[in-house]
Formats: sequence, structure tokens, C-alpha cells
Amino acid sequence: MASGVPDEDAGRVASSLITSNLMGHDSHGLHVLPYYLSRIKKGVIKPGSKINVEKETEASALVNGNRNFGQLVASVVIDVAAKKAEKTGLSIVGAFNCNHVGRLGEYCEPVAERGLIAAMMVNAPPSVAPWGGIDRRLGTNPICIAIPRRNSKPILLDMSTAVVANGKVSLLVGTGERIPEGWAIDKNGKMTTKPEDFENGGAMLPTGNYKGYGLGLMIDLLCGAMTGSGGCDKIPREGVNGIVAVVMKPDLFVANEEFLSSTESTLNFILGSRLQKGFHEILLPGQPEQRALEERSHNGIFVNDVLWKKIETVSAQLGVSLR
Amino acid sequence: MASGVPDEDAGRVASSLITSNLMGHDSHGLHVLPYYLSRIKKGVIKPGSKINVEKETEASALVNGNRNFGQLVASVVIDVAAKKAEKTGLSIVGAFNCNHVGRLGEYCEPVAERGLIAAMMVNAPPSVAPWGGIDRRLGTNPICIAIPRRNSKPILLDMSTAVVANGKVSLLVGTGERIPEGWAIDKNGKMTTKPEDFENGGAMLPTGNYKGYGLGLMIDLLCGAMTGSGGCDKIPREGVNGIVAVVMKPDLFVANEEFLSSTESTLNFILGSRLQKGFHEILLPGQPEQRALEERSHNGIFVNDVLWKKIETVSAQLGVSLR
Repeated sequence: MASGVPDEDAGRVASSLITSNLMGHDSHGLHVLPYYLSRIKKGVIKPGSKINVEKETEASALVNGNRNFGQLVASVVIDVAAKKAEKTGLSIVGAFNCNHVGRLGEYCEPVAERGLIAAMMVNAPPSVAPWGGIDRRLGTNPICIAIPRRNSKPILLDMSTAVVANGKVSLLVGTGERIPEGWAIDKNGKMTTKPEDFENGGAMLPTGNYKGYGLGLMIDLLCGAMTGSGGCDKIPREGVNGIVAVVMKPDLFVANEEFLSSTESTLNFILGSRLQKGFHEILLPGQPEQRALEERSHNGIFVNDVLWKKIETVSAQLGVSLR
Repeated sequence: MASGVPDEDAGRVASSLITSNLMGHDSHGLHVLPYYLSRIKKGVIKPGSKINVEKETEASALVNGNRNFGQLVASVVIDVAAKKAEKTGLSIVGAFNCNHVGRLGEYCEPVAERGLIAAMMVNAPPSVAPWGGIDRRLGTNPICIAIPRRNSKPILLDMSTAVVANGKVSLLVGTGERIPEGWAIDKNGKMTTKPEDFENGGAMLPTGNYKGYGLGLMIDLLCGAMTGSGGCDKIPREGVNGIVAVVMKPDLFVANEEFLSSTESTLNFILGSRLQKGFHEILLPGQPEQRALEERSHNGIFVNDVLWKKIETVSAQLGVSLR
């Protein structure tokens, strides 16, 4: 609010960040607050600007985010997509002029709770090396898919196409902590375990080697070239990224009850596998986040010293008291 | 033809297998011929049965494969999806009662050559352990995405959600060759490099650990529960699997020319990365297959002794001369 964001919008973005922390993804939590504030200062994020549908058919729409917060743009995208899918069975909505949207699960999960199947992708600033390459070219370009269940939280896959989201590395810069081997390379292409090497011109690696590279590339073309937002080549210049969401009714082919029964029976079969040593249970996508939410809602979230100092600094600059 | 398959259908399936060999994917080539023949014998594949659209809206359709060859069912699926997408901009087509479809790229690539964006997924018999598990639960559940380019072959991502397709392992059984560490576990969950350990109750591993597991699970629910075909829990009993294809026009949001230009500019940026040691170039999804096609169309395909003996055996059983 002190940086000129309308009260309600500030509340929604704050809630998005804190929910990411609570769900175990500190990479998308308070960690990005100083970054968001610097982007407001630079005029890349334009608080309060109008988010509008520019082009529309019965089953599709293109949303102009007008450089407002990604969280607000992504909410419009998923709302429009869900409404269209409820009418037509299947919809696709794209967005351009969008900022960092945070955790994709935030938008897909509520739609799946209403009984729809939702998928969302975004492209992002270059931070991942292509397979066989050294330089930052692709974003961590995540994809999220949410599928409704009977009497349970939706199954929620929300994954970066890099080994991990780059926030999981940048969060550790200056803390003295190391990252696991296989996450990132330094600016000369050598494998590194120092988060500082990534920050200093290094790159993240794609998940599953050439598979994550291929999937990340496809997501960039859909969210960048197809929405008109621009691909990884344009994001550093324009500062903004694109979104694509696809929503559908699960009863396009069979009755909803059959779909829900079949889903439970499939999940039970998967969960019935014997366990590898060191594992206590098989989890479904989204369950680790649900567990973290329960635990952290009770015990609170952890903010490291480096991040806390940054938050103190930006707060002081804006004349906001932290007490 | 000797096993009762109508001439034209036999030609199309044979062409599908040989094209897989030519494109470098021996796992989907002649290797599966003895398996297909045994499935005809068992009545799981029903040659000549009618493939029909059972349910339809403007943008969606459900295809009953009636246990015919997967190749023939998948061709109907993509044709129906492409025709609907050309009219409405976006379509989804599912199929049930389907057999092994082979290489998904076979169906998506021609549609992208016509200027559409095509995606296809299938579920498959359990052969992959869930993340943290030991037992075969999920199929290798591949996903394919094809995106058109200006004056070039489409970009063609066609990937299993396991580390590799299981045919890449079963192809080596009895040859004395080893598989790389990280592909498969034996029946007790121990990492193995022997393809025989996989055949003997072992399991493949998901690509990118929990990410491939999550993606494979979502693909199973879409192709299984949603199409009514049944998930990984039902495939061993029913013998058949499901397909989902989504096709769209790339100019849903911006003009086609803008999409194509933007795509080229993005690809050039990615290909401009410096190279890792040991790499001579950065490849786009689909290029390794194009290279293999050129090379093998010239030099022929390799059939190992184990497979050749199997082909001799089934040929003799059907009274077919190989000369």
C-alpha cells in the first residue's frame, strides 16, 4: 500500500506470497517482495492498471494484463477460462503484459474444487540453460494441472520445467547454504553447489535433461509467441511474460460420477505400491503442499536473515514500520 | 495380412513400425510386431473392427476404438480433432478401447505441418514405479506436442514420462547389453542395469523423479478416468488404453504471421547459447528424429539377433516366408 498499490490488490498479492510460504514454497513467498517493490519503482509493475479482455470467442479469450501484478492477471485468466468451460465444456485463455504470477496452483486449485479440470502455464525470464547449452535461455516455465476428486482436495501438479524453481536457489544467496549437485551451473557451464554462482551469470538446469528442456521450450512458445507476449528472447527487454490456461469439464466424455469413481480406483492402485527404502508413504501431487500448509499454519514460516534484512531495508525506504 | 488384418490396415501399421525404426525409436519399431501378433491371437487386438465416434459436440468427440490397432484409432482421433479445431479454434478428442498407438509424433506432426498446434497423450500398461514406490503402477504415459514453423519441419516434442520408453529396455532383453543406471529397478526396488531384471517384475523409473511421476499420473487420469477407458488399475485386466488429443489454431490470440515470426526469433535466441563440453550443437525437439530418418533411410535399420529370431518364429507360425 505504501508503494501505491490499491489496498485490495495489495492484500491479494500479500496473501498470495504468504500462502506460498505456508505451502512450503518459500521461493514464491516473501522472498519476492523486494523484487516486486523494485519492479514497481522501475515501472515494470503498474499497480492499479486495468486488466481487460482484448479478444474473445465462445471458448477463448486473450487478456491484456497492462503490466499489473501477475497474481491479479492470472486470477482474471482463470476466472474467464472457468466461466467459458462451464458453458462450452472446454476453453483456452491467454494473457500478455503480465508480471510474475507466483505459484500456479493458487489459480488452478479453486477451479478444480468447483469440479473442473484446469491447466495453466507461464513463461518466465531466461534462467535455464537449454539441453547441451551453458547460457540462460529459457525460463523455469512451470506447468500446473489440477484434477478434482470426490471428497478430497484436488490432485494438484505444479512443477517447474527446471530441476527446481530458480527462487529456490536465489533464496539461499548470501546465507552460506549450498544447493544440491545437479540444480545449476556457473557462468562457464561447470556444475556448482553455490547459489552465488547461479546469481553471478550461471544457469539452472532443465528437469529430466532434454525432456524438461523440450517441455520448457513448448511452454515458452505457447505463452510467448502464441499470446503475443513474446518469448524468452523478448522477456528481458519487455519485462513481462505470458500465460495460457486450458480448462475443461471432466464429463466431456463420461458421466462425472464415473470419472470420479475411476479416479479414486486409479489412485488407490498407485498408492498400493510397496515402498522404496527411506519412504514412509507414496504421496499424490499437491499433498506435500497440503502437509506444509497444516504444519506451517500452526508453527509459522521461516524467514532467513538475508531476506529479513532486505525486508527491513525496503520497509524503511517506504516509511513502513515492521512493528 | 496373414494374421487376418485387412490389407490396407496391415500396410498402415507396418509403415508405422518401420517409420519408428527409421526415426531412431527402435522401441516402437519392429520390436513390437511379435507382441502385436500375440495380441491378435488373444483377441485383444481386433483387426478390422469399426472405429466410431460415440459422442460429439462442436469442439469435442469421444472415439470408440473397438479394440482395433492403436495406430488406426489414433489416426481417427487426430483427424477428428484437427477438423474440429479448424472450425472452432480449439478441440479435444478422447478415445477408449484402444491398443498400443506407437509413436505419438506420427499423429501430431502432420497436423502441425498443416499449421495447427497439436498435443496428444496416451496411458499405457503399468511398468513405472510411482515416486517412492517399487511396484509397476503407472504406464510410461507419453505426451507429444507439435508446433508449426515457417519453412521448417514442426517442433515435435514426443516424450515418455518415464526416464525412457520401456521398449528401450525390453528390446535389449537377451542381447547381453546393459541399460544405464537410473532407468530401472529390479523386483525388490534395487537399481539395476540388466534389462532382464526389469522384465522379471522390475519397474521403470519416472523422469525427473517426482515430476515425471506427477505428470504420468495426470496423463493416466485424463486418458483413463476421463475417457472411460480406465486407468492403470484397469489396463492389465481390460488390455486396452485411452487417448486424449487437444488441437488448436495458433492464431487464436495473434495473427498467424506474428506467431510464426515470434517463434523463429525465440528459437534463434535459444540456439544462440554457448555449448557445454561434448556438445556440437543445440537441437530442437524433433531434430534428433529427423537426423535419424535421413541417416537410416540411407543406411537401413538395425534388427538385433533376438528380435530377428522372434520375427522368424512368428513368420513360420503364420506360414509367411521372409525371403
